[in-house]
Amino acid sequence: MNITLKQAQNAIEAALTKSSELGLKMNIAVVDAGANLTAFTRMDNAWLGSIDIAIKKAKTARFFNMETGELGKLSQPGEALFNIEHSNMGLITFPGGVLIKDSSGEVIGAIGVSGSSVENDQDVATYAANNYK
Amino acid sequence: MNITLKQAQNAIEAALTKSSELGLKMNIAVVDAGANLTAFTRMDNAWLGSIDIAIKKAKTARFFNMETGELGKLSQPGEALFNIEHSNMGLITFPGGVLIKDSSGEVIGAIGVSGSSVENDQDVATYAANNYK
Amino acid sequence: MNITLKQAQNAIEAALTKSSELGLKMNIAVVDAGANLTAFTRMDNAWLGSIDIAIKKAKTARFFNMETGELGKLSQPGEALFNIEHSNMGLITFPGGVLIKDSSGEVIGAIGVSGSSVENDQDVATYAANNYK
Amino acid sequence: MNITLKQAQNAIEAALTKSSELGLKMNIAVVDAGANLTAFTRMDNAWLGSIDIAIKKAKTARFFNMETGELGKLSQPGEALFNIEHSNMGLITFPGGVLIKDSSGEVIGAIGVSGSSVENDQDVATYAANNYK
Repeated sequence: MNITLKQAQNAIEAALTKSSELGLKMNIAVVDAGANLTAFTRMDNAWLGSIDIAIKKAKTARFFNMETGELGKLSQPGEALFNIEHSNMGLITFPGGVLIKDSSGEVIGAIGVSGSSVENDQDVATYAANNYK
Repeated sequence: MNITLKQAQNAIEAALTKSSELGLKMNIAVVDAGANLTAFTRMDNAWLGSIDIAIKKAKTARFFNMETGELGKLSQPGEALFNIEHSNMGLITFPGGVLIKDSSGEVIGAIGVSGSSVENDQDVATYAANNYK
Repeated sequence: MNITLKQAQNAIEAALTKSSELGLKMNIAVVDAGANLTAFTRMDNAWLGSIDIAIKKAKTARFFNMETGELGKLSQPGEALFNIEHSNMGLITFPGGVLIKDSSGEVIGAIGVSGSSVENDQDVATYAANNYK
Repeated sequence: MNITLKQAQNAIEAALTKSSELGLKMNIAVVDAGANLTAFTRMDNAWLGSIDIAIKKAKTARFFNMETGELGKLSQPGEALFNIEHSNMGLITFPGGVLIKDSSGEVIGAIGVSGSSVENDQDVATYAANNYK
């Protein structure tokens, strides 16, 4: 199964709502099960450098079917996947990339959020991934 | 002046409406005055290869402040700008990239549409650029 | 607001003056509010590898609206933004990239300096950002 | 011999003067004998897409020690160097890239101009290459 545009829009809408509540300016990207960009939104005055990071977070999460923050633990110096970020035209491995699953638990896409602290990025992404229906 | 997210969303909404009327599956990208991605939407089952093309069309239009199809006339073999597409990490110079202007005529961004014939791509982009308010 | 060429030239002139005082050979880049290159100058016999670094420092500062050195603290192993440098076609996150603001405090561009120690790079960039009028 | 920063600045100054006389908004790049960027200037509101084109024109001219327009004749379909633009991370082979020579005729650098018609680009580049002392 693949995320629909309607679901992707809902996820972005949820992320926008959460970001506004928290007073944050976010870049938000959704990719589908094929790791291809489905929807993207940049809030007014959000960081320009976070366009690419939001997209890379969403892709990275789907590339390895895990949250970007989990991958980041493994890519530290001395760890098993050190510098995996060099693959796939660049990965982002700190928090803010979260999988989107359907009701059966199957991965149908992923969302990446960038524009604030990694904690805020992760919170907004998680909220959106849980409220896209 | 720079396009706002609200205006970019309206442009994409207009493009979606027009595409649905015509029975088309489009990728739609909006960039701001700095040629940075502001919003993107891919309709269900739209061509995957058109993600990048839609984004490049929007950027190309803003890069040179002209419709992509106009630039394409000049980049043909023997014409003044042959192979200009090799610049800027890749341009797309066939129709479907259109400028977005404010009421005073100032360029505030651009829209790129890809997913059908270049005529349809151009029609949808033009409609959206005229109906984003 | 966007930096003007006149302001960018003044910033580079200030950077050249400061560099000459310190006996340094610098590469100096200025980008506008859209992170697009506005002006660049390489002093005679300055490092060739610093052309790209100066440009990337200026872009990085504007991408995230902070000095490159601040971002670099966050991108160390174990820190929140480890390996963020893989985004945006390559970032530079050590000192030498500084924001340029107008009198109201709005960011209108950024300057990147590379060619000496990071302390000297930072000093020259800061001086220029404070003396571009 | 290599172009000095002073000479590069003079070339850009000449290009700015000529562009202003003609009412044009240009991007102007100068590279040295090693094809490395020495100086760059973008006039206010000049095309964003011409940043990269001006730099590539200057590099292309020096890469092959000929004007870009000359190379462009050879890169047309059926000609000897068809699609040479794919090399060197992208070449630009239409007019506007001109060699800068010292008084003995030795090539010391090149200038690339982009922002108007190729005729205007070429005129400004030629003027600057002849008036950099």
